[in-house]
Amino acid sequence: MEIGSSNHEKAGVFARGWWWLKALPVKFKTMIVGLLEKIIKVGKDDPRRVIHSLKVGIALTLVSLIYYFRPLYDGFGAAGMWAILTVVVVFEFTVGATLGKGINRGIATLLAGALGLGAHQLASLCGHKGEPIILGLSTFLLAAASTFSRFFPKIKQRYDYGVVIFILTFSLVSVSGYRVDKIIEMAHQRLSTIIIGGFTCVTVSILICPVWAGEDLHNMVAQNMEKIASFLEGFGGEYFSRSPEDGDNPVTSKNQNTFLEAYKSVLNSKATEESLANFARWEPGHGHFRFRHPWKQYLQIGTLNRQCAYLIEALNGCINSKIQAPPEFRKKIQKACTDMSLECGKALKELASAITEMRQPCLADPPVENAKNAASDLKASLKTAILENSDLLAIMPAATVVSLLVEIVHCTEKIAESVHELANLAHFKKSDPTVAPEKPQLLHRGTIKPLSGDENPQVVITIPDPLAINTEIANPECVNKHY
Amino acid sequence: MEIGSSNHEKAGVFARGWWWLKALPVKFKTMIVGLLEKIIKVGKDDPRRVIHSLKVGIALTLVSLIYYFRPLYDGFGAAGMWAILTVVVVFEFTVGATLGKGINRGIATLLAGALGLGAHQLASLCGHKGEPIILGLSTFLLAAASTFSRFFPKIKQRYDYGVVIFILTFSLVSVSGYRVDKIIEMAHQRLSTIIIGGFTCVTVSILICPVWAGEDLHNMVAQNMEKIASFLEGFGGEYFSRSPEDGDNPVTSKNQNTFLEAYKSVLNSKATEESLANFARWEPGHGHFRFRHPWKQYLQIGTLNRQCAYLIEALNGCINSKIQAPPEFRKKIQKACTDMSLECGKALKELASAITEMRQPCLADPPVENAKNAASDLKASLKTAILENSDLLAIMPAATVVSLLVEIVHCTEKIAESVHELANLAHFKKSDPTVAPEKPQLLHRGTIKPLSGDENPQVVITIPDPLAINTEIANPECVNKHY
Repeated sequence: MEIGSSNHEKAGVFARGWWWLKALPVKFKTMIVGLLEKIIKVGKDDPRRVIHSLKVGIALTLVSLIYYFRPLYDGFGAAGMWAILTVVVVFEFTVGATLGKGINRGIATLLAGALGLGAHQLASLCGHKGEPIILGLSTFLLAAASTFSRFFPKIKQRYDYGVVIFILTFSLVSVSGYRVDKIIEMAHQRLSTIIIGGFTCVTVSILICPVWAGEDLHNMVAQNMEKIASFLEGFGGEYFSRSPEDGDNPVTSKNQNTFLEAYKSVLNSKATEESLANFARWEPGHGHFRFRHPWKQYLQIGTLNRQCAYLIEALNGCINSKIQAPPEFRKKIQKACTDMSLECGKALKELASAITEMRQPCLADPPVENAKNAASDLKASLKTAILENSDLLAIMPAATVVSLLVEIVHCTEKIAESVHELANLAHFKKSDPTVAPEKPQLLHRGTIKPLSGDENPQVVITIPDPLAINTEIANPECVNKHY
Repeated sequence: MEIGSSNHEKAGVFARGWWWLKALPVKFKTMIVGLLEKIIKVGKDDPRRVIHSLKVGIALTLVSLIYYFRPLYDGFGAAGMWAILTVVVVFEFTVGATLGKGINRGIATLLAGALGLGAHQLASLCGHKGEPIILGLSTFLLAAASTFSRFFPKIKQRYDYGVVIFILTFSLVSVSGYRVDKIIEMAHQRLSTIIIGGFTCVTVSILICPVWAGEDLHNMVAQNMEKIASFLEGFGGEYFSRSPEDGDNPVTSKNQNTFLEAYKSVLNSKATEESLANFARWEPGHGHFRFRHPWKQYLQIGTLNRQCAYLIEALNGCINSKIQAPPEFRKKIQKACTDMSLECGKALKELASAITEMRQPCLADPPVENAKNAASDLKASLKTAILENSDLLAIMPAATVVSLLVEIVHCTEKIAESVHELANLAHFKKSDPTVAPEKPQLLHRGTIKPLSGDENPQVVITIPDPLAINTEIANPECVNKHY
């Protein structure tokens, strides 16, 4: 019996093993298909990634020619290695980052090489015993001081890579000098191969489908604005179509995922925007952007975008809350609220497309005015609604929505001002040739106070009366067209 | 006359030049003093920076000994350079980052070295003419494929540096192989010097005043919670002490800068927290943290912290708004609002100190309950206040404050639940030995749904009745102590 059962078990194990083996090709196929799908997705999300990968391959193959051609190899010798090393570490996705790293590397190598040679000369005056002590001490001091300098925000931002290369080159030159006799020749070979490597990177990066950090920043700021606009345009329909029991309605949840959730990526856009702006400052003029394009102004608009996104985050909480004001009350404020949010959305969409097309955002002023007028209509409708309503506690959630919308209107106004300022700083083209001649002395009336460089400068929304109509026109340049 | 005036002008230029020269030492001194002050500030802000700089100097001096001692130099030759290079690029501020980079570098070098040797062998079979073609093609394909793999978020997060080193080593080995005869010896020398460099970094990083990324993450999450708590504790006093005309009062503005602005750094904490969590996963057990400490749970708490900070950002807008509800109305809701925010602040302070001291956060439950009770008191006081008040439109701003505070109470509750979960996952010590025995089957009742890994998972605050009292106790483990 026992033997039988053991046989049975064995057979079971074999059967399972056999099944497993038989299933293996299928599993393997599923895995490969899954991987391929992932690869295609990453490539489709941004086809420039594929091109970038090929560009790295091309640059690397180009510099490795140094090894394959005898005349080149005879000239540089093993120092050709430094060209390969430079390409691998310097080649970045955007032209700005590549240029920044390349320039940092070149200058740092030159400086540190010269200093290293100096240290080597100084040390060799101290005799055979003193030499390693002087060299070691200078390496220690320089490495410690340079590392410390990397903690300064300004150096960290722009020259971090340069400092690393500075430490590296100084240590290598001063220390190798102790053993290598032809140190000048070595330094010369290394510097020239690094320059070759850097030059190859920059050339390939610019000539083959360049990815400009500045353009990316420009588009990102406009896209973020559009995401906020999409939420605002959809908000009215979403909020007022819901009954309090609608909370878990799968249709609305799915709908929400598409356009009501896009703004969430704006909340954490600060780091990306700042690094793009940093890279953009290294870039030469390209397309419609000249060398000293006002990249900082984009950061300011980005900060205002985020302020708006924080308000929307609070507003989104109201949509999803299960306690809502009674439908009859909501109906009374529906038109004014929907108008406010719709007009803000329109204004932001227009501002975003003005940025994208690099033209004066005159068309954005009427919707901003409309939003303000809607806010003032709201005052009237709220008054009647409150007077008619008995359960005042129940309308509180709606009051929050109204307050947040009013703040969003003011935030939209600030964004419009900031975009107007960008348009002036960057000399965006007029959207209509019939527009009145420019009046630069008036243009800065709408300028907002520059935000301090701190984290999250607070946009204090000081409103004398939030629902009052302000019929002043933000930018007189656009007067002739719409008024 | 003309000559006289020209002389006069010349004398003026000389005089100005003389003044400038005389002022030079003073200017120079001011500059130096300014620089010194900056250096002292950067060092004082985090004294570990000074220690880190010295550590880099020490590690670099240690590996450069390879050059100074003849027996070592004879063994490694010029490959000693790779030890220096490794130290300069691998040594990072935290142990986790250093370990991660070191391990990445070691494994990538080994793998790519082996592959490079293989490619070299394969190419040498193709004859003298075919060799560079095969080598160039394999370099191109591998570089392109590896660069593309860096766009996968998971690889980017943990193995980015490894992939860069993989490309570098493969290119160097396969290409050098074309010229260097003793390629195996070279590969061996390089690998061993890289291991020496990496080992030196890790040893110095761990032995001399180690900076643990995990500990930093732990402290950062607790500090962010404290910053939010400080705002909430101060909010009541700040909001209710202000009259509508107070807006630009310099005393309040200054006051605000100290404790009411601290929370702003929480808004953009996502990137730092995520990179610290990434580094922390490389770290071995240290202090109170074991190897597989639940670092992901900190990210979840961090997300909730940010949710709370977004609400506070909206609340802060209400403080600074010039339109406020009439003082007599505000007086009526003052106690309940102040209590709500004060108790939330207390709860968060207690949760933060529980995290810092790594103990069960039982003491945080009573203030959370108190905050909920205060919310319910608010319902009563609001009812009377609204019934008595004639100008209903005027009280709208106060209604917004109330709604936001209610949402903050709910957010605080979620944070408390998340910290309880962390305390259980990480086996924090009981704060009181008299506490009842653990009941693990009940502990997960308070568990919140894990947030998805996306950017800003939305915390949908679904509240059946926002002002209702929920007297259930979040964590039964703490029952015996406080109820």
